[in-house]
Amino acid sequence: MTLIVVMEHQASQGAVDALIARLREMGFDTHLSVGVERTIIGAIGPKRPEYIQQLGAMAGVDRIVPILQPFKLAGREFHAEGTAVQVGAVTIGAEPLVVMAGPCAVEGEEQLLKIAREIKSAGAHMLRGGAFKPRTSPYSFQGLEEEGLRILALAREQTGLPVVTEVVNPRDVELVAQYADMLQIGARNMQNFTLLKEVGKTQKPVLLKRGLSATVEEWLMAAEYIISGGNEDVVLCERGIRTYETETRNTLDLSAVPAIKHYSHLPVIVDPSHGTGRWRYVTPMARAAVAAGADGLMVEVHSEPEKALSDGAQSLTPKNFQQLIEEVEKIAEAIGRDARQNVIGVQVNETQ
Amino acid sequence: MTLIVVMEHQASQGAVDALIARLREMGFDTHLSVGVERTIIGAIGPKRPEYIQQLGAMAGVDRIVPILQPFKLAGREFHAEGTAVQVGAVTIGAEPLVVMAGPCAVEGEEQLLKIAREIKSAGAHMLRGGAFKPRTSPYSFQGLEEEGLRILALAREQTGLPVVTEVVNPRDVELVAQYADMLQIGARNMQNFTLLKEVGKTQKPVLLKRGLSATVEEWLMAAEYIISGGNEDVVLCERGIRTYETETRNTLDLSAVPAIKHYSHLPVIVDPSHGTGRWRYVTPMARAAVAAGADGLMVEVHSEPEKALSDGAQSLTPKNFQQLIEEVEKIAEAIGRDARQNVIGVQVNETQ
Amino acid sequence: MTLIVVMEHQASQGAVDALIARLREMGFDTHLSVGVERTIIGAIGPKRPEYIQQLGAMAGVDRIVPILQPFKLAGREFHAEGTAVQVGAVTIGAEPLVVMAGPCAVEGEEQLLKIAREIKSAGAHMLRGGAFKPRTSPYSFQGLEEEGLRILALAREQTGLPVVTEVVNPRDVELVAQYADMLQIGARNMQNFTLLKEVGKTQKPVLLKRGLSATVEEWLMAAEYIISGGNEDVVLCERGIRTYETETRNTLDLSAVPAIKHYSHLPVIVDPSHGTGRWRYVTPMARAAVAAGADGLMVEVHSEPEKALSDGAQSLTPKNFQQLIEEVEKIAEAIGRDARQNVIGVQVNETQ
Amino acid sequence: MTLIVVMEHQASQGAVDALIARLREMGFDTHLSVGVERTIIGAIGPKRPEYIQQLGAMAGVDRIVPILQPFKLAGREFHAEGTAVQVGAVTIGAEPLVVMAGPCAVEGEEQLLKIAREIKSAGAHMLRGGAFKPRTSPYSFQGLEEEGLRILALAREQTGLPVVTEVVNPRDVELVAQYADMLQIGARNMQNFTLLKEVGKTQKPVLLKRGLSATVEEWLMAAEYIISGGNEDVVLCERGIRTYETETRNTLDLSAVPAIKHYSHLPVIVDPSHGTGRWRYVTPMARAAVAAGADGLMVEVHSEPEKALSDGAQSLTPKNFQQLIEEVEKIAEAIGRDARQNVIGVQVNETQ
Repeated sequence: MTLIVVMEHQASQGAVDALIARLREMGFDTHLSVGVERTIIGAIGPKRPEYIQQLGAMAGVDRIVPILQPFKLAGREFHAEGTAVQVGAVTIGAEPLVVMAGPCAVEGEEQLLKIAREIKSAGAHMLRGGAFKPRTSPYSFQGLEEEGLRILALAREQTGLPVVTEVVNPRDVELVAQYADMLQIGARNMQNFTLLKEVGKTQKPVLLKRGLSATVEEWLMAAEYIISGGNEDVVLCERGIRTYETETRNTLDLSAVPAIKHYSHLPVIVDPSHGTGRWRYVTPMARAAVAAGADGLMVEVHSEPEKALSDGAQSLTPKNFQQLIEEVEKIAEAIGRDARQNVIGVQVNETQ
Repeated sequence: MTLIVVMEHQASQGAVDALIARLREMGFDTHLSVGVERTIIGAIGPKRPEYIQQLGAMAGVDRIVPILQPFKLAGREFHAEGTAVQVGAVTIGAEPLVVMAGPCAVEGEEQLLKIAREIKSAGAHMLRGGAFKPRTSPYSFQGLEEEGLRILALAREQTGLPVVTEVVNPRDVELVAQYADMLQIGARNMQNFTLLKEVGKTQKPVLLKRGLSATVEEWLMAAEYIISGGNEDVVLCERGIRTYETETRNTLDLSAVPAIKHYSHLPVIVDPSHGTGRWRYVTPMARAAVAAGADGLMVEVHSEPEKALSDGAQSLTPKNFQQLIEEVEKIAEAIGRDARQNVIGVQVNETQ
Repeated sequence: MTLIVVMEHQASQGAVDALIARLREMGFDTHLSVGVERTIIGAIGPKRPEYIQQLGAMAGVDRIVPILQPFKLAGREFHAEGTAVQVGAVTIGAEPLVVMAGPCAVEGEEQLLKIAREIKSAGAHMLRGGAFKPRTSPYSFQGLEEEGLRILALAREQTGLPVVTEVVNPRDVELVAQYADMLQIGARNMQNFTLLKEVGKTQKPVLLKRGLSATVEEWLMAAEYIISGGNEDVVLCERGIRTYETETRNTLDLSAVPAIKHYSHLPVIVDPSHGTGRWRYVTPMARAAVAAGADGLMVEVHSEPEKALSDGAQSLTPKNFQQLIEEVEKIAEAIGRDARQNVIGVQVNETQ
Repeated sequence: MTLIVVMEHQASQGAVDALIARLREMGFDTHLSVGVERTIIGAIGPKRPEYIQQLGAMAGVDRIVPILQPFKLAGREFHAEGTAVQVGAVTIGAEPLVVMAGPCAVEGEEQLLKIAREIKSAGAHMLRGGAFKPRTSPYSFQGLEEEGLRILALAREQTGLPVVTEVVNPRDVELVAQYADMLQIGARNMQNFTLLKEVGKTQKPVLLKRGLSATVEEWLMAAEYIISGGNEDVVLCERGIRTYETETRNTLDLSAVPAIKHYSHLPVIVDPSHGTGRWRYVTPMARAAVAAGADGLMVEVHSEPEKALSDGAQSLTPKNFQQLIEEVEKIAEAIGRDARQNVIGVQVNETQ
């Protein structure tokens, strides 16, 4: 890796010498640059993240600036082509837009089968629904667990829609993988490294949601955990980050879409339901996500939001979901998803 | 205004009585609701913001929940129709999308006239450019001041494009108003109330940028200052908020667009240049902004970004700006700007 | 629970009736308050968090304001006395200040035993050290795992200092509990509910770090998971939250200390090492934490920070740790830890 | 200034050559470092902030890392000794702690004189009170303006306490300077550069509050505006930053105190009233601020908080303020304000 070590204004010659000696001991080539104001040392050497902290602890060091993004497998630098991920008959990251929809939680067989039929007829490509629910309160509905998985599989049988559902416990990865077509890692688990390693061992595609306060870099590092574990089928999902703004449940960071396209070859979709927390804003933000270049959407839909066991306030009715589909399809055409590589390519690779 | 006063769990009867007495003294009608866990008092009375803090200071009070949004003139509640603002021959807030473009700063006559011609031929509707520049560092270029205004007016003569430019000093409002067609209040001045009152006295349209860490409510309250001062021609501009994410200069909060449409009748445009800080992300986010329902865009364009006196890294070349225009026009068609009222109307007013 | 339902300005009578009908169906008593501007409905009824979202999805509802903090067992409302947690011979939450210290990671037997002796002679009361390390990068040192636990137990034998160490995998809770005196839940796992439930089943005291972007309320809800699982020995640890400020690794939110004292009976300590990320700021912030009323500190110490396998830049040398102890002891005296209950009591319970 | 230019992975030789040519044209000496993964160019040359943006716009550039903090006059690098600022008979930044107190707003002669006498007898050293009030709502009390200044001057006559009060309009700087001993720049005006330049022309000491979302660096750059304008008597005031946490009005960032001590020679005080927004937390955070090394405090006090025209909920009663003083004095002794230079010196300059 490449590091820039910036010494303090008053750093002694001894401190500079000690630092260079330590860098060489670590196996770095060093370039010394003595300025009027500061001494700067450029260093190129082995990829050992802990070295950054160690050098930061040395006398006279103001700060260390690491240069290369720490991700390799998830990065576009060594994998220029975009990746497409196959989930059953659905391809995520290719030309056509992919829409995943369904209730926040699987509440029962009748409820889910009804919604599954409704979203399919509206034009959704995949079914979402939670069987294991991570809830802020221990007193909230925690999900139907395996029974919920069974119902999801049944809905797939009846509708043909591949199923994506969340796994929260490393112990349950195999179980969920038996029923689901795609494993979802929720925002609160984006840095649950034990869970990331576990799904990295499976061959199921993984939907990796961005953490509530994760940077784009940390998000890609979480993907790196899964890929370096042996599972290359990772799809990223922007779902809003936490900011001071309280009008929306989260702040949907759509600039993460072109940023991911710039740094990574992985597909990226957007969840405007959690991203806004209010059904009113879901459709406009779904349109915006597609216009920004997202490969797909994940939308919460419920036949009776006012009776949903969770997230009612951000769930669309089937009728409004139908309209969302119509509107986003127009946007998808407008940005020429049939020529997406080119369009996005222009944004990403061209230099002015 | 309407308030909900929540008493502490252990609040004494004396505290409750004192509070109700004080509320009545303030002129409120009160509704007492005694729960097992808490006592709640609903109160309806005169609109006096300071009362909220006063009541919050009373014994036994846990918190005060004010109900009505404090803005009246900027709000949609008493002004259901969207407002359109006229700037020269350009209408902002009506069906057609409005694109403002130009350099961050006016650097000289030749530079500005060249860019003005370039953006006009690319399809821009208004010219932007800073004559007075608020800069983080006192050592940065501070703008050409009146000479810059003169050059902007000259560019208008030659191109016919109305001019929007920032005013930073209450003393200069009249001066800037003599040259410009629209007065811009920058993000750092969104709560410079002296300046807001000053522009409220003019009859020039005002472009009010959102503060770096302003809530949607505070932003609308800033608009309220201008309108209550007598100037109703206010256009809001989302330009990104400050978050922990460092990949982008700011985090462009596009959900503010449907939120503004929901709460206010004022037009809202988006500045993807400051919103991202990186030219690469400007076009995708411009597309997204239009798809979210924005009435227009403000984009930084420079003939030679690598020689710009400010914001080079986020400025588009005329060539890339041309492409931005082509792409956003497709999006504008797709969301049927010719039927915007309906489309947006659906998002904003329908109940599920 | 108690809810305030705020209707939209233009809500129809039908919407209000439907809402009241639904509230009664849910088992709520309702108080209607019709204002000029808004209709407000106060409702008292069963504690069912999902109801909040369901009502939020109904026609004409602007927003729902839940009144009671959702936590019961962690809250002070029904448990006015402060709780003290026993860890071996050490009591956390009583008069004396408790200082936990040690390296970020256990790197080897010699390293840990050396540091353990050093921190003990400096006056630390407990030993910290990671055997299982959650790291942002899969390429970073991940910890010695069980071997690390063995070494920690050995250090306890030799020094008599109780050991606190992190558990990251629900599967390892029993294993870690065999070696450690206190189980640490790291910031990234604060909402790893599977893990919280698992430690809730043990009888080991738990140190619950605040999540990077957790509110005080979410933090207490995480404690609620552990307590409602059957384990009452929870100690909270403020370790900094994520903000836009990059000068420090995190922003240490010391106001969380009096806030926790106000809402909860649980002890709270502070980690100024992660809270600042820079050794220079650790001692001043440790003094500040004690002055704010913290029951203890967790400080990273390393004999050779410049060779630490992690967090070198925020680790104190034993010499500086010694000084930290001397300085915080003076502060502890100054706020009269021997009369802490009173002093803090005054801040927390008195009404002006 | 010193810059590190990081090229993109795929940057062409032509791009590298063009960049070096441009750097030389700008007057920089360059050091080329070609790594396996990236090419890095170190450059030392003239201090021209705009160059950073210009280079960022060039082909093949990934990012520019500027090395030296951009502030000179406010920085400690060329001014190792701490500065003390004289306000009447009071010295800020020397050994003794300085406490400023008073109401948020001057509401009338009787009110202010009463509070002034109360805070003086409690031990305050300076009187604060707003005559010009920047308020979020145009419908809130805006201050008594010149009449308020007259009353403040009268209170000084009667109590001998120097007066600090806010100026919000560049036009009023002279007027306020005629009455006040210290000019306050409020958080919302920290980047009101017109106002900063205006107070830079006076010889009155300035209290510069940190902006709601300002970094430590931006804050020091704001001080740089004042000092470079000719006024060296600047005192910084930490008053909380905006974060996602809603329990407190702002998040008081006490780590800014040692950070300012590290980077700057200017005195720094803390305002725990705005920093927390809740009177309950003011005293613990005042203790913490002093323990962190603050040179003083600014505290809101009101004889009848429940009737205050603003900020009642965060104002202390004289009785509680009296107690605050007693508690912070103990902390001041404990950190040896009489040996502050040494103590703080240790934190700031020592290398481990």
